[in-house]
Order: sequence, then structure tokens, then C-alpha cells
Amino acid sequence: MTTQMATEVAEQPNVLRSTLDALLPLRDEVGALLRERRRVMLVARGSSDNAALYGRYLLETHAGVPCAMAAPSVATHYDAHLDLSDTVVVSVSQSGETAEIVQTQAWAARCGAATVAVTNGADSALAREAGLALVTTAGRELAVPATKTYLAQVAAMALVGTAAGPADPALDDALLGAAGVVAGLLAARDGVDDAVELLARPRQQIVTGRGLLMGTALETALKLEETCLQPVRGYSYADLRHGPISVVDDDVTALVVAAPDGPLRTAMTELAGDLRGRGATVVGVGGDDAFRAACDLWLPGGDLTERLAPLASIVPLQLVVEQLARTLGLDPDAPRGLSKVTRTDAP
Amino acid sequence: MTTQMATEVAEQPNVLRSTLDALLPLRDEVGALLRERRRVMLVARGSSDNAALYGRYLLETHAGVPCAMAAPSVATHYDAHLDLSDTVVVSVSQSGETAEIVQTQAWAARCGAATVAVTNGADSALAREAGLALVTTAGRELAVPATKTYLAQVAAMALVGTAAGPADPALDDALLGAAGVVAGLLAARDGVDDAVELLARPRQQIVTGRGLLMGTALETALKLEETCLQPVRGYSYADLRHGPISVVDDDVTALVVAAPDGPLRTAMTELAGDLRGRGATVVGVGGDDAFRAACDLWLPGGDLTERLAPLASIVPLQLVVEQLARTLGLDPDAPRGLSKVTRTDAP
Repeated sequence: MTTQMATEVAEQPNVLRSTLDALLPLRDEVGALLRERRRVMLVARGSSDNAALYGRYLLETHAGVPCAMAAPSVATHYDAHLDLSDTVVVSVSQSGETAEIVQTQAWAARCGAATVAVTNGADSALAREAGLALVTTAGRELAVPATKTYLAQVAAMALVGTAAGPADPALDDALLGAAGVVAGLLAARDGVDDAVELLARPRQQIVTGRGLLMGTALETALKLEETCLQPVRGYSYADLRHGPISVVDDDVTALVVAAPDGPLRTAMTELAGDLRGRGATVVGVGGDDAFRAACDLWLPGGDLTERLAPLASIVPLQLVVEQLARTLGLDPDAPRGLSKVTRTDAP
Repeated sequence: MTTQMATEVAEQPNVLRSTLDALLPLRDEVGALLRERRRVMLVARGSSDNAALYGRYLLETHAGVPCAMAAPSVATHYDAHLDLSDTVVVSVSQSGETAEIVQTQAWAARCGAATVAVTNGADSALAREAGLALVTTAGRELAVPATKTYLAQVAAMALVGTAAGPADPALDDALLGAAGVVAGLLAARDGVDDAVELLARPRQQIVTGRGLLMGTALETALKLEETCLQPVRGYSYADLRHGPISVVDDDVTALVVAAPDGPLRTAMTELAGDLRGRGATVVGVGGDDAFRAACDLWLPGGDLTERLAPLASIVPLQLVVEQLARTLGLDPDAPRGLSKVTRTDAP
């Protein structure tokens, strides 16, 4: 029997195509907003926050727009008075109904910000109240773990990040080709069985990535934790290196996500080698040939250039999470204790 | 035999006094900088990042200055071109020699930012190259886990956060009284033995806090992980609520850090009750009477008002970490794999 999560993961090539079709006509409007204001603040939680984190790196590294990840309690509980008149506040929420995010968007508008909502909820409060709504077209998501709606958010972030950047026809071509890359990964399922077998063993797990792919790593950690009920720790490369790497030993399975190009390539290969040197079993996703050779087990990540790699590299990891949950006797569609519209709290 | 870490923890009242003596005369200069530029970007890793996170909340909620936590790879690896001419970049590093932080500060200056260094290294590269150096006077720290240098950084953040805020003599009095509060906590060691006994059991551990005290929670998690080699997860209140709370059960010990006042008070008491309802054993630090009643075990946090609570509430947790390490047969002064000047990597 196919789970709902598996069905929704499989829908992603179509979701990518239709979301880009829907949003690309709005890119000039987003670009004009970003040129008028000089800063971006991103507002999100959970999986949406992991998509937003990709947006942050893309905006800073590709478009040269300084970004901040908002601390929502500053809005919802402290009601701080910040001058955001130079800022575009981009709020990301699958449902568009998470009270904390809706409230933070309203606060941002009161602080003078222009507001852009990224949501799959076309009629949601977040979309209705935003200055500009980027509505993803993932369709209704029935499984509790966000997969296709997450990937649609990542696509929206690619749109926002490229809206203010230099014109780059090759990058645009790659963006339009991402759906095909995802379809290829879904058909092949390379390495998924082996990764599931490894991760089903009762060992400590860590997940790491850096820069444009840090959001992918954190999203993987969140999925393993929520869907497979594993006590996983997700780290940025740098935070891991800074200290916690000292607790890595042969009781650890480390998932490392990398891109096939970009300035972090060598560092990620060295990290994989270092983790192995400490005894960890390293499962790599993506990267180049040298990275692959440094891993114990390797899954293809889709070979999109680093700036777009998050549109594909999460896919093999979604396949692993779905299959691992079933292997562990869990229902990937309804992990314990989670509901679809997340609620932080009402102040 | 007293460990070096215990000695350094005990020095903290004097460190607080001398650091505030050294830095308070510079507060007007910091305030002028912050009024001239309208934004702050904080650059740090590890414990320093946890101190910086407190600074971020204080700057936004008390002084109304929008802040961002920097992503150092944007500087060190991507060399992004951001216009930071409206920004004060505050870099925090105990040694002042961590290459990544020194490089990011230099990049910020090239991007037009004013630079402020917070460091215990008076002659360090970070201090020498900063526009303004806030040199903490913790003295040499010999134990690898940062304790007194962390608290000195927190004091420097209190200075930066109050520099641009409204004049508040009561808050200034509380700041000057913090050293006495810390001395009281050190003398009493209330609840430390019981907390160590609990945490020595082989259970999953999580640490959580929110807003101004989130940095304290993350610092506690980092210390338990690095010094006691426990696979701890540190969460913001909101991220925990958003999903991972679903994996909390009776195999979990949850450390919850709260303040005696402020807008998050009720939410933290509810969280403690919720975690207990899921079977977790809840160890609370600080908070008010209702919070205390909602916990299985409670340690006093020093009763400083929320805006300054991080100057005291970490102290009982340092006592717990030091004693727990010894109880587990570990050397708190030299945890496995760590060295004093941290190195992320050289690009």
C-alpha cells in the first residue's frame, strides 16, 4: 500500500512546474519591491523556516540583499517597535493560518515593512493580508510531514532570491529544469534502501550542511525527528566543527548534504573525511566526485548548481524518511502528536 | 580537588564587576554609534553566539534596533557584496583570534559597516582591527568550557543593548547588582545535587528557553554536550512547540529556563506543565512561583528582571554541568576533542 506521504513526494515534479508557472510572472514585481527596499526579514517556523533559510543565503550571496531571520516572539510577545521601512518582510507558512506567523506579518506592516507571503493557502489569512502573496500550487497535503509544500516553498524562495539578482539565463534554465531533475531522482531511488538499512540501526544520528544547503540539512533532521521519531541533531557545518564534533565517534551515523559546485565544495569533502576519521558512518547526498569518494554511502542529489541544489537534494532524503518510518513500524502519514496547522501559541 | 572550571565559575562575581567597570565608560560611545547607524549584525559561533543571541533580543525588544545574526560563510566563503553602511557589526569571540570571526569582521568593514568587537583578548586581531573594542576582563580562562568569559560577553551584550535604549536607572541599578546575585547563587548551590543526580541517568535530554533567555538555554545545551558528552538537543520554546515536542515522553529530562517577569512568563509555565503531561521530568531554572510549581525540580535563577536574567540564570546550570561531568567520570577542564581557540576552517 502506498502511503499518502509517498504519493505527495511523487507529485513534486508537477508541483515544481505548476508553482514556477504561477510565480514566475510575479518575479518582476518582487524584484521591484526588493530594489525599492534594501533589506529582507524572513518569518517562519519548522519546515517553512528551513525553506526560508535557503532564501536567506540565496538573497545574500546571489542578490546582495542583507537578510535577517526574524525572532517572532519579538513581535508576538514583546511587541517591539522596530523601524522596518527599508525592509521587505517575507513570511512563509504552508497553511497561511499559523497564528504566530500571521501576527508577525501584521506587526511587520505596522512597523512600516512591505509584506510578501509565501503560502500554499490561497485564501489564508497570511495571503489575504500580505501586500503581495506568492501562492504555491502544491495542492492539498494530507500527510502530516510537509514534503511537496516544502519543495514548493523552496521554489518560491528561488524566485525571490533570483528576483533581485543579476539576470542569469543559465540559472533560469536550470530553475525550469529542476522538475525534470526531481523526476529522475524519484525514478531511480539510488541508495535509498541502503541508507534506510543504516539509519534503522539504533545509533546516534547527526545531519549537517552549510550555506545554501544548510536549510536542506535542517529539514532532513526535522523530518527524521518528527516522522521517524529519531533523536537527531541537525547542525550547520560550522557549528558542528566549532565543538559538537568532539562527541562524534563510531556510534554516530552522519548525514552530510553537499552541492556539486560552489565555494564550500572542498570543505564539505574534508568534513566527510573528518567525520569518518572519528569513526562515524557517513552518508553523503550530492556533492562532487571527491565528496562521493569521502563517504561510506552516497546518494545522488540531482546535480543542480549550488544556488538551486535545494530544489532537488531534499528529494532522496524524503524517500529515505518515508521508507525508514515504515521500516520502523511507524505511519509516515500521521506521526505521533503532530497536527497539520501548527500552533506555537496565542499570546 | 577543585577543577579549573569550578574555580573559574566561582570567579564570576569579580569578573562581572570588573568587566562592567571597564565597559560602562564606553556605553555612550556605543550608543552614539547605534543611533548613527540603525541596524546591528551579530557575528559569533558557539558560546559566543549564545551570548550574542541575548544581545539580539535585548537590542530589538529594549532598544528597538533591528538585528540580524550573521551567516559567516556569506563572508568567508561566498564573499557576498552587501551594503552594510547603515549597520553596526558586533563580533563576539572569547579569544579574538578565531579566523572565521576575524575575517567576517574585516569583510563587514569592507561592506561599509562600523565594527565593534567583544572579546576577552585585549591584544587580539579582532580587538586591534575593530572600530571599537569592548574588551572583557575575565582574565585568562584555562578550562576549555567557556564560563567566566561567556558571562563577561553577556555583560558586554547588556551594555550594548542598554546603550541605545531609553535611560532606565532601575535597570542600571539591577545591572550593577548582578554580581551580588551571582555570588548568592554560587554560595547556595540550591538544587544542584538533585539536578546532577537526575541528569546522570541515561535518558534523552532537551533544554529550552525563549526570547531573552533562549541564549541561556542554548548555552546550557552546548555545555552539556561538550563538557558532559551528552547528546542533548537545545530548542527555542517555539521550535519545540512547533513539532519536536511530539517526541517527548517519559524517557526525557527537560531543562526549562525562565525569567521571573516579562511577557513570556505564562507561556513558560504552560510549557513546563505540558512537558510534564507528556511524561518528561522537568527541571526548571528561574521563573516565578507558578513556574516553580509546574516543575518536578527547580533551581533558583537569581531573580533578575528578564532583560538582565541571562547574567545570572546560567550560573546554576554551570554548577550542574561541572558537577555532572565529574559524576560521569569526565574531566570538565579538558573535554574530549576540544581546544581553546576554536577553528571553523580557513577558506
